[in-house]
Amino acid sequence: MSQPKSSLFYTFFLIPLLMLSQNRLRDHGVEIGVLQPGTFNAITDVPGVQVGHTTHNESENIRTGVTAILPHSGNIFQEKVPAAIYVGNGFGKLAGYTQVKELGNLETPIVLTNTLNVSTAMNAVIGYTLEQKGNENVRSVNAVVGETNDGYLNDIRGRHVIEADVIQAISSATSGTVPEGNVGAGTGTICFGFKGGIGTSSRVLPKKSGGYTVGVLVQSNFGGVLQVAGVEVGKKLGHYSESFKYSPDGSCMMVVLTDAPLDSRNLERLAKRAMLGLSRTGGIASNGSGDYVIAVSTAEECRIPYESENPIQTVPTLRNEAMTPLFLATIEATEEAILNSLFAGETTVGRDGHKIEALPKEKVLEMLKEAGKMD
Amino acid sequence: MSQPKSSLFYTFFLIPLLMLSQNRLRDHGVEIGVLQPGTFNAITDVPGVQVGHTTHNESENIRTGVTAILPHSGNIFQEKVPAAIYVGNGFGKLAGYTQVKELGNLETPIVLTNTLNVSTAMNAVIGYTLEQKGNENVRSVNAVVGETNDGYLNDIRGRHVIEADVIQAISSATSGTVPEGNVGAGTGTICFGFKGGIGTSSRVLPKKSGGYTVGVLVQSNFGGVLQVAGVEVGKKLGHYSESFKYSPDGSCMMVVLTDAPLDSRNLERLAKRAMLGLSRTGGIASNGSGDYVIAVSTAEECRIPYESENPIQTVPTLRNEAMTPLFLATIEATEEAILNSLFAGETTVGRDGHKIEALPKEKVLEMLKEAGKMD
Amino acid sequence: MSQPKSSLFYTFFLIPLLMLSQNRLRDHGVEIGVLQPGTFNAITDVPGVQVGHTTHNESENIRTGVTAILPHSGNIFQEKVPAAIYVGNGFGKLAGYTQVKELGNLETPIVLTNTLNVSTAMNAVIGYTLEQKGNENVRSVNAVVGETNDGYLNDIRGRHVIEADVIQAISSATSGTVPEGNVGAGTGTICFGFKGGIGTSSRVLPKKSGGYTVGVLVQSNFGGVLQVAGVEVGKKLGHYSESFKYSPDGSCMMVVLTDAPLDSRNLERLAKRAMLGLSRTGGIASNGSGDYVIAVSTAEECRIPYESENPIQTVPTLRNEAMTPLFLATIEATEEAILNSLFAGETTVGRDGHKIEALPKEKVLEMLKEAGKMD
Amino acid sequence: MSQPKSSLFYTFFLIPLLMLSQNRLRDHGVEIGVLQPGTFNAITDVPGVQVGHTTHNESENIRTGVTAILPHSGNIFQEKVPAAIYVGNGFGKLAGYTQVKELGNLETPIVLTNTLNVSTAMNAVIGYTLEQKGNENVRSVNAVVGETNDGYLNDIRGRHVIEADVIQAISSATSGTVPEGNVGAGTGTICFGFKGGIGTSSRVLPKKSGGYTVGVLVQSNFGGVLQVAGVEVGKKLGHYSESFKYSPDGSCMMVVLTDAPLDSRNLERLAKRAMLGLSRTGGIASNGSGDYVIAVSTAEECRIPYESENPIQTVPTLRNEAMTPLFLATIEATEEAILNSLFAGETTVGRDGHKIEALPKEKVLEMLKEAGKMD
Repeated sequence: MSQPKSSLFYTFFLIPLLMLSQNRLRDHGVEIGVLQPGTFNAITDVPGVQVGHTTHNESENIRTGVTAILPHSGNIFQEKVPAAIYVGNGFGKLAGYTQVKELGNLETPIVLTNTLNVSTAMNAVIGYTLEQKGNENVRSVNAVVGETNDGYLNDIRGRHVIEADVIQAISSATSGTVPEGNVGAGTGTICFGFKGGIGTSSRVLPKKSGGYTVGVLVQSNFGGVLQVAGVEVGKKLGHYSESFKYSPDGSCMMVVLTDAPLDSRNLERLAKRAMLGLSRTGGIASNGSGDYVIAVSTAEECRIPYESENPIQTVPTLRNEAMTPLFLATIEATEEAILNSLFAGETTVGRDGHKIEALPKEKVLEMLKEAGKMD
Repeated sequence: MSQPKSSLFYTFFLIPLLMLSQNRLRDHGVEIGVLQPGTFNAITDVPGVQVGHTTHNESENIRTGVTAILPHSGNIFQEKVPAAIYVGNGFGKLAGYTQVKELGNLETPIVLTNTLNVSTAMNAVIGYTLEQKGNENVRSVNAVVGETNDGYLNDIRGRHVIEADVIQAISSATSGTVPEGNVGAGTGTICFGFKGGIGTSSRVLPKKSGGYTVGVLVQSNFGGVLQVAGVEVGKKLGHYSESFKYSPDGSCMMVVLTDAPLDSRNLERLAKRAMLGLSRTGGIASNGSGDYVIAVSTAEECRIPYESENPIQTVPTLRNEAMTPLFLATIEATEEAILNSLFAGETTVGRDGHKIEALPKEKVLEMLKEAGKMD
Repeated sequence: MSQPKSSLFYTFFLIPLLMLSQNRLRDHGVEIGVLQPGTFNAITDVPGVQVGHTTHNESENIRTGVTAILPHSGNIFQEKVPAAIYVGNGFGKLAGYTQVKELGNLETPIVLTNTLNVSTAMNAVIGYTLEQKGNENVRSVNAVVGETNDGYLNDIRGRHVIEADVIQAISSATSGTVPEGNVGAGTGTICFGFKGGIGTSSRVLPKKSGGYTVGVLVQSNFGGVLQVAGVEVGKKLGHYSESFKYSPDGSCMMVVLTDAPLDSRNLERLAKRAMLGLSRTGGIASNGSGDYVIAVSTAEECRIPYESENPIQTVPTLRNEAMTPLFLATIEATEEAILNSLFAGETTVGRDGHKIEALPKEKVLEMLKEAGKMD
Repeated sequence: MSQPKSSLFYTFFLIPLLMLSQNRLRDHGVEIGVLQPGTFNAITDVPGVQVGHTTHNESENIRTGVTAILPHSGNIFQEKVPAAIYVGNGFGKLAGYTQVKELGNLETPIVLTNTLNVSTAMNAVIGYTLEQKGNENVRSVNAVVGETNDGYLNDIRGRHVIEADVIQAISSATSGTVPEGNVGAGTGTICFGFKGGIGTSSRVLPKKSGGYTVGVLVQSNFGGVLQVAGVEVGKKLGHYSESFKYSPDGSCMMVVLTDAPLDSRNLERLAKRAMLGLSRTGGIASNGSGDYVIAVSTAEECRIPYESENPIQTVPTLRNEAMTPLFLATIEATEEAILNSLFAGETTVGRDGHKIEALPKEKVLEMLKEAGKMD
């Protein structure tokens, strides 16, 4: 695994560069919510978190890929992290749900890909874990793999993701800026009838609320009636499902990481709030949607060693009433991550000549301006 | 139970009157979502549904009450209705959850009241059911009673709701227009730091989507950062929890009725979508919130007789893929019902001189106008 | 609350007396499982736990009552305990489920009574809590009240339990020996067609498994085909539901307390195992059964203060892999508690002359002897 | 898929042969429960059900395989069946859970294998489904694959199951007698410290209870304190986990099929009862156990076409109160299926010379005789 670049590098070099480019919603002066994002406004603002992508954008028919999220850079199987998964709508094939629910922890990287390659990715994650140093006697691995269906743009029946793609996404994972849009597991996905993909955002709580960071990464592939910062873009454009231009079905994978010390019960509550963020973009969790939220605490003091001589573990966790600011942070970061996926998504032609346009950003920004959302 | 008034009465007399009054959000030309509401834009647009309130607005300290919703006007215990309850956030005392979950049906009116009078209301509903004609041999009643905590404005420790209040709410229930704001179970509730209360709304699906009606009634008593039709009212007014002006804790009871023929599994899915509607008003389901959604199908052909000689019941139900329009309808009607509760809420002084202002409607409408939401 | 009697009193006086009486299954040399019970073979073997009963055995028609279980003798609202509730079969009216699930704790005594008096008991528990010293500002109470239906022997429609009965059960709760059979909430209940009622048992883990105690108390009111220590008593007597002598419907309330330091997730897992114990008595969790298990950790270091200046609580909890011996203990203690309820139950005539016989203990012991179960 | 053999073939030829062989518990005159089994006392007594095995019993280290269960012999994706999955204890990797829960149906054969080959089996089931005639446009497949961990006897890290094994298990599936013990997914599994494996049993309800058949198939790989027909075999042999001879961890996959017309809600209730059957064999659902129950209704009138022009499906389903006899049947058949897996299991030497003995049947039968269980 590569060494994370120093944050100084980003602060003085990359960030000014990014600010010039004005690719993301916030670069246009549009703020979602009332809390502040972290340095990168990305899931990687949570200390130690790394993200890697493998993108398959090949021939005319292949528009798919893999995205891997690592909650920490150590051996996750040996140092498990508290985790929960919430099912917003379960028309999906996410692997690993029941064990996370039962044991309250995650023991592998989180991998996202397309619907029909979940098993490929599981195979890869299992192999990766078995072969990790220190795991020589491991005989049971709960791979957590999420998916959305990119079958409109991608020849999904061809199942073009291979195990090496997954290993590459994991091993190339880095901290810092996260590529968005048509990358990794988002290469072929569609959101509100426009090109979606990977998006990310973060929030940092005020000191008095604990100062914790919440980072969200989404693989957006769902429908509804698009709202951007509360502006009814989908309605104004007449671009929504009731007008039968496209199916609202699809899915959204949401990954929520935080350095707040949380147990699995409160992580499940946190995960639930990501659906509220999805709703604010106009998402409706349609029948065909597989909407899943994976929430993890990366707090070092909460890690769960695979084996321990002591049957008792003494762990600090946040009390219930300290959760509310984290809920708000999750909602805001999820909303903005989805919008970022739309702002980064690029017009794509794929399988059988199917074409999905990018969000008409100029028009949308005009609408936002008219509504007083850009100052 | 009183006879429902004919809908002609409403169409020709009451509705024109109401339209003059412009009390509700939609009266100002603000439309929530893309679907159309029913005649009354109320839960009572679902055929056969009746609502009744008992309001305790007495002395300086008592601001509470009871709201009853009847899915049909017959003997509900003998003719049960398919039902589900979804727990958005379970810091609440709703009665009846586990049996509805297990058996998939509802056998009493739905009653809402304050937190510490749930047991009073249960007692009343049990008594009401035992004494109904035809129930002489009934020895088990699953009363469904929801609540929110009106303890800031109301002397809730005094537990001022009595059983007769519940019986009155049930027996005075009528179809047609539903009083909103400071009535019934909403007499003392607070929403986003403003006076909330009872609100209602409905949606009617296009014929090609089945033509079904979805009606929602809420008892709003929660917080977050208020958004009205996507406009960030709470942020603009600086009136939200992070500014520590009030606690976002509180709760929201949501009742979703539809004449679509649904089984309990799809009703639970429908119920989940009400939380997405709540989110669009800026709700965050804070730690202290008891957010519950009760969903019921009133379709006559789906009723479940208490006793039957035939162990098999043959029932029409909607297929999964026909659910999406109902999901959208639920989201929209919930959002508008909550906003209606705020538009109807009136400034209230209660327990120990506590005062909660009504939503500053003039200002809000001004903001909506500036954002281009009123045409 | 009365002072617990010293355990010396029990060791030197009461226990020898009880051993003479040979009322319980174990007194006859029949051992359930492979683990050892505690001093009293009762839920009160868990340190600090107290149980109280109020019994209504009046006139010809009233056969009901209340049983209260206190996890500790302090102010439970101010010093909450980690808790979980598992629903084996949810045809029941248990109050308090959703909040325990959401927050992972219990804040009142656990009260058991009959189906139609759950609301009465809630009222009483709420009143009790509001009036406790230190709770002057409490405005929200999650009363946990379980029930089974004693309507065959008891005039349940008369709702003869009053609030004072509940207060009495709570205030008279003591440690030490727990009366079983026709007492408290078990006064009118029926188990496998015989007189059931209250039963209790406990297990103490070996030192190497942590030395923890698990105590179980049941209110038995269910059916199936009775097995006593694996001997098919119900089948041999032809006394089971398929022979249509009685309905297998009914319910079982199970309360599982332990001094092992457990969080709510592992308490829910523990609670699930009580159903396995019920199964070993021949229980089938019939459609009409309300089978609920309430599990609580009484470990002092796990208590959750109502209010705290520190948003973080540091708590020792057992690791997942240390749970297995506790699971076994729960299964064994539940099985034996149910059998104890049957051995203690006495022939009862109640409502409308309905008569339920006690388990024919002589015959059963004969069968056990023949099967080699008594040495 | 091969043609099912006629039942005449079995009735006149194979069954008499089997009766001579006395391999199964019931052949020795030991009856479990009070209901009668079907013709084969196997899951295949449910009309239309087929089972196939692929067994890997190779070299010194490979003891694994695949078992496939087909609820009907048509295209399951096009003609889905109502289904539910209950998680007894979720330390397992079963694939497909969340979609079955959300949509209430199953769309592939059920496949069982070892823990680290779940993804291989998923891949195979997806491929099988994509290539089935009529599925040319399918782009989403929810493969349901269960597993237990055979890593003590099998070189599980070698992941020796290949996709062709799965296809073979599916295509060789037949009705009639089901091979038990060291076959298919049971080749390397261990139960109560003895050789377990595949086991099956069935029950046929009396006409007055509907005359339905319930069939159960298990892959037994778990621990506890073995009880055979209520006789404490594990305790008498000193062969249980507290004696530290082996770990009680492991898992049990249970598949429950019935021709009763049930919706997914009641199928989930049915599935829960299988855990009660497991308990009666002495199972304790230890921490490390992955105990899952997959329940399916094979009733033709309940099938759910993949696509339909009619948004409404009218389906007969059993009323709640008709479920109880099916619950009893499930408990009994599960108990007997597990015992059958033990009676069929044969002493096995596997990975690194690890040896697991078969259940000492002579001794066990002697114990049963002494306890009066064999007449």
